[in-house]
Amino acid sequence: MAFKTSNVRDVRITSQFWSQMQTCSREITIPAIIKAQKDTGHWYCLTWKEGHPVKPHPFWDSDIYKVTEAACYFLMTRDDPTLLAEIEGAVDMIRSAQHPDGYINSYYTVRGIQNRWTNIRDMHELYCIGHLVEACVAYESLTDSGRLLEPVMKAIRHVASVFGPEEGKKHGYPGHQEIEIGLLRLYELTKDPLLLYLAKYFITERGKRDEHGETYYDHEAKARGADPYDPMGTEMRHTYEFPRDYAYHQAHKPLVEQDEIKGHSVRAVYYLAAATDYVRLSGDQTIRDAVNRLWRDMVNTKMYITGGLGAMRQWEGFGPRYILGDAEEGNGCYAETCASFGLTNWCTRMLRLQLNSEYADIMEVALYNGFLGAVGLDGKSFYYENPLTTYSGYAKPRSTWFEVACCPPNVAKLLGSLGSLIYSSFDNVVAVHLWIASEFTVAQGNGTIISQKTNMPWSEEIELTVSGPKAVSLALRIPNWALANFTCSVEGEMRQGYLHLSEVQNCTVKLHFPLEPRKVYANPMTGKNEVAIMLGPLVYCIEDIDNESVNVDYVALTDAPVRKGPPKNIATVEDVIPIHATGRVLQNAKWSSLYSSTPWQWSEQTVDLVFVPYFLRMNRGGNGGMHVWSKRV
Amino acid sequence: MAFKTSNVRDVRITSQFWSQMQTCSREITIPAIIKAQKDTGHWYCLTWKEGHPVKPHPFWDSDIYKVTEAACYFLMTRDDPTLLAEIEGAVDMIRSAQHPDGYINSYYTVRGIQNRWTNIRDMHELYCIGHLVEACVAYESLTDSGRLLEPVMKAIRHVASVFGPEEGKKHGYPGHQEIEIGLLRLYELTKDPLLLYLAKYFITERGKRDEHGETYYDHEAKARGADPYDPMGTEMRHTYEFPRDYAYHQAHKPLVEQDEIKGHSVRAVYYLAAATDYVRLSGDQTIRDAVNRLWRDMVNTKMYITGGLGAMRQWEGFGPRYILGDAEEGNGCYAETCASFGLTNWCTRMLRLQLNSEYADIMEVALYNGFLGAVGLDGKSFYYENPLTTYSGYAKPRSTWFEVACCPPNVAKLLGSLGSLIYSSFDNVVAVHLWIASEFTVAQGNGTIISQKTNMPWSEEIELTVSGPKAVSLALRIPNWALANFTCSVEGEMRQGYLHLSEVQNCTVKLHFPLEPRKVYANPMTGKNEVAIMLGPLVYCIEDIDNESVNVDYVALTDAPVRKGPPKNIATVEDVIPIHATGRVLQNAKWSSLYSSTPWQWSEQTVDLVFVPYFLRMNRGGNGGMHVWSKRV
Repeated sequence: MAFKTSNVRDVRITSQFWSQMQTCSREITIPAIIKAQKDTGHWYCLTWKEGHPVKPHPFWDSDIYKVTEAACYFLMTRDDPTLLAEIEGAVDMIRSAQHPDGYINSYYTVRGIQNRWTNIRDMHELYCIGHLVEACVAYESLTDSGRLLEPVMKAIRHVASVFGPEEGKKHGYPGHQEIEIGLLRLYELTKDPLLLYLAKYFITERGKRDEHGETYYDHEAKARGADPYDPMGTEMRHTYEFPRDYAYHQAHKPLVEQDEIKGHSVRAVYYLAAATDYVRLSGDQTIRDAVNRLWRDMVNTKMYITGGLGAMRQWEGFGPRYILGDAEEGNGCYAETCASFGLTNWCTRMLRLQLNSEYADIMEVALYNGFLGAVGLDGKSFYYENPLTTYSGYAKPRSTWFEVACCPPNVAKLLGSLGSLIYSSFDNVVAVHLWIASEFTVAQGNGTIISQKTNMPWSEEIELTVSGPKAVSLALRIPNWALANFTCSVEGEMRQGYLHLSEVQNCTVKLHFPLEPRKVYANPMTGKNEVAIMLGPLVYCIEDIDNESVNVDYVALTDAPVRKGPPKNIATVEDVIPIHATGRVLQNAKWSSLYSSTPWQWSEQTVDLVFVPYFLRMNRGGNGGMHVWSKRV
Repeated sequence: MAFKTSNVRDVRITSQFWSQMQTCSREITIPAIIKAQKDTGHWYCLTWKEGHPVKPHPFWDSDIYKVTEAACYFLMTRDDPTLLAEIEGAVDMIRSAQHPDGYINSYYTVRGIQNRWTNIRDMHELYCIGHLVEACVAYESLTDSGRLLEPVMKAIRHVASVFGPEEGKKHGYPGHQEIEIGLLRLYELTKDPLLLYLAKYFITERGKRDEHGETYYDHEAKARGADPYDPMGTEMRHTYEFPRDYAYHQAHKPLVEQDEIKGHSVRAVYYLAAATDYVRLSGDQTIRDAVNRLWRDMVNTKMYITGGLGAMRQWEGFGPRYILGDAEEGNGCYAETCASFGLTNWCTRMLRLQLNSEYADIMEVALYNGFLGAVGLDGKSFYYENPLTTYSGYAKPRSTWFEVACCPPNVAKLLGSLGSLIYSSFDNVVAVHLWIASEFTVAQGNGTIISQKTNMPWSEEIELTVSGPKAVSLALRIPNWALANFTCSVEGEMRQGYLHLSEVQNCTVKLHFPLEPRKVYANPMTGKNEVAIMLGPLVYCIEDIDNESVNVDYVALTDAPVRKGPPKNIATVEDVIPIHATGRVLQNAKWSSLYSSTPWQWSEQTVDLVFVPYFLRMNRGGNGGMHVWSKRV
């Protein structure tokens, strides 16, 4: 069984909630990203020749490719000649930036191409090409013109001439995974065996050691005349805990030997997303076992309740198991936007491998929380990091741009391709993973349409209508939070969290997912004797703007149940359900010293505390106090 | 008023507790350190010439100097011809290692002296000389032979020819402070004005910026052909948060402009100890204000209850205010041994500037907890880091040696010079800072002796007998934990935590400090709603070896009072008072998932939990579970 992800073009999102997010992304985010790149000049880096006075950053190319890819997704469901012209211009620029041998990278073009491929650990040449390949998949799916496929295949043939297992080639692999994803996506589009071959090579070569215990990164460092063992040397990155800390790149050992997810979170989930596709395409059981082990390790020991990944700021990545600090202060809780983005990508690939609602549950959590809150409701301000706690007096508004600008285009990429996450199909089975109002045109269905009507995440009711000439079997994901008490108007069979209904045709299925707020607690291994509030897939937080009579840094929840408040608009989002909780206030919060013999004293009287969805945080100003987890009293 | 620290030679420690620690240090630690240096070859690095096949580490020289200094302290109170011969041999080696112009450093001697003084930010040349100067102070105080003073003054004149405010000299300052301490100590011994001049220069030049906002470190990096602004470049240290993060070296701004203690903790407290001496010697009020500001910031926002400093592993230093994680895991709680050592040195200098018991209280806490636990009772195993929590199943025994071996010799230095921390004097006033059984020969007292009898930290009683021809006034520090209910047999006047008794002669003063265990709580700004137990200056911890019926990672204390248990021997330490507390056990500690809707459930039944002094941790084996702070239930 291998499910096929639905084509973006075949899904029309009708959800008011998600349409609003998509419109904002299409109309504001993408133009804002392109404008920022043009204003800073980054957009033109591909046109620069050797010796250009501005020296491109190693990843500027990727920003161009990523926004191109994102734009293509939006263009698949809605014409926009201006945006299309912009994208065609980018394609022209890419075509003319390529060197005759297929190489393309502004960093080395400007600085001198003779140094290319000498530091693939740090210099992102393969990473950038990877994003170019993904842009190509999107662009060719949109236009089928071949205008990007041609230079991309030329670039890939160049890469394959430099890297590979064959004697005389460099036995290297990218310092930041991404090209593996691109290669496999393009392979699925064109079936060119070189793409699968090269992806397999990069996935399996990573982390191999020679008889001296050295990796390719040691070899290339020495070839540059550097000493990778020197703790004071040039090879000691500030993201390493110790010299040769290749766990940062997931290159400390081969994937099949790894049993703990480590290092830079975005690299890790990009790698695992690609490996998951590779398992599906190759049937490799050893890699499948490794992917499953690392999934289990991440989900059971290293994932924030929001679907955020990466508790360590120093290496923007995973910390030790169960160490999940909530604040950015003190170098904890990085939870990079791109990592939650990458996690949704990994989940959708796991779902193609195995229909198990755990993958969709986590995709949904990452989507609504770790990911969605990264973009402001203005569509043009972004979080790079998504901590679960910020303190009163230290407001952290979103930024309009970053020097390292990986996150904003990923926001647009995911919102543009959101439709593809909702449905997948295999033979006549259509799986519904996300409960987002939309219309799905069934492939080879002769016009058969699945229409999903719901006001999720604010409503408990879903109507799924199958209409048209083809009968389809449905696999409906029952979210973990509704598993105990959902109802469905049609009887079906539950298997791994999906309710299977056979041969549905011209029929409406009604689902009811009781939407009661619930308290969630953390594994004691985390040391966190605290409580969080969720409603459906939404993680809630307390913000000072809704709780002006208290200092939200110093409140605790009692054991009383939490309750839904009447729906209201929060900033530009309608129908939001706030949650009310009963709390107490710390009465002696102000101390003159660091330690004292007087214990914390909580108020006798309780207070009503208001919680709102985490993704809506810091959209209405406020003093900065925001907490997902609350103390218990 | 400027108190003079007592001479090591004038204090005979009679305390069974501290004599045991000193004997262990003299008989085991110092020989072990010298043996380790000889076994590894480091000891001989000063004899190596250019091109020697082994390349010294930048700080190996300092280990030789530090153990030499420590040995001298022990030799001041007890003859040991073998040890003295060893030290004289080291002095011979130092004398012959010096270059004709006064330069001395094995790192550059072996690698090529032409590169000396090109990277004082990282390369520790001035740091090593600083330790040499301190060794000189100890050695000359012991021998008065001039054999080390001569090469040391030659080295200092060389340094002064290279660095200084004068045109044509490098306007640099050490990347790791230490020479400032040495210069001022030697100045107090010899009164050579060059020493004060150079110390002032290094203390005040640090952190100055030119009209482009650049510091000396930027200048020297550029002179090396490097780009300090490049986040991927050679100047981006792994201990930096961002390029040019000179807060690591306390060089982000001049001392007089600093209002938050930042960066590498050892560097910071060495710097501030020297600045405090400089204030006393110069009367500089602006620096005094800065020292006081940074003291207050550290004590009120960044110090562990143990006197440990440095919540951030990445830069081995201070984190943001109130961020004080207890576990090493997740890059928190570095609490380096050398930082608590440096803190005691800073405290003793603050006490010379101003007689205020806060400085002695903190010195005592750092001494008994953050510092003393760093050495095993075997005298030859050490902690570099001193976290407040370790987990069951992850035992962290002390190590016998470190590649970067700064901590073990500092342990010997402090234990060797412990006598000098106990008393200080000014005119006919003798201040008693620490309650450690000992005999102090009053300077110019014609044989007047102050005899302190006590079994502290295990007893409440102290007898202080002044005998001999001279009447002295006493300033007796009343510890903060005894302030409310101490008694003294002689009436006196309390001023800033010291009880002043006038003109005491041939008289015994009896002090009683009720020693009841107490619960201590942390400022809510830390987020730590937990409780710690203290008895006098001792911080306690729970260890699994005393609490085998429970998992100490999953217990909480009730509000019931804590109680002293009967004294017992713990490992080799006699009369230790354990503390008993009433706790509950987490009944559902084992979870299959990271998050769940089931809250933590504490046992109905209470259990008796045993706590022991933190400094005794991990001396009896065990499974590794150890916690200073306990949850409350």
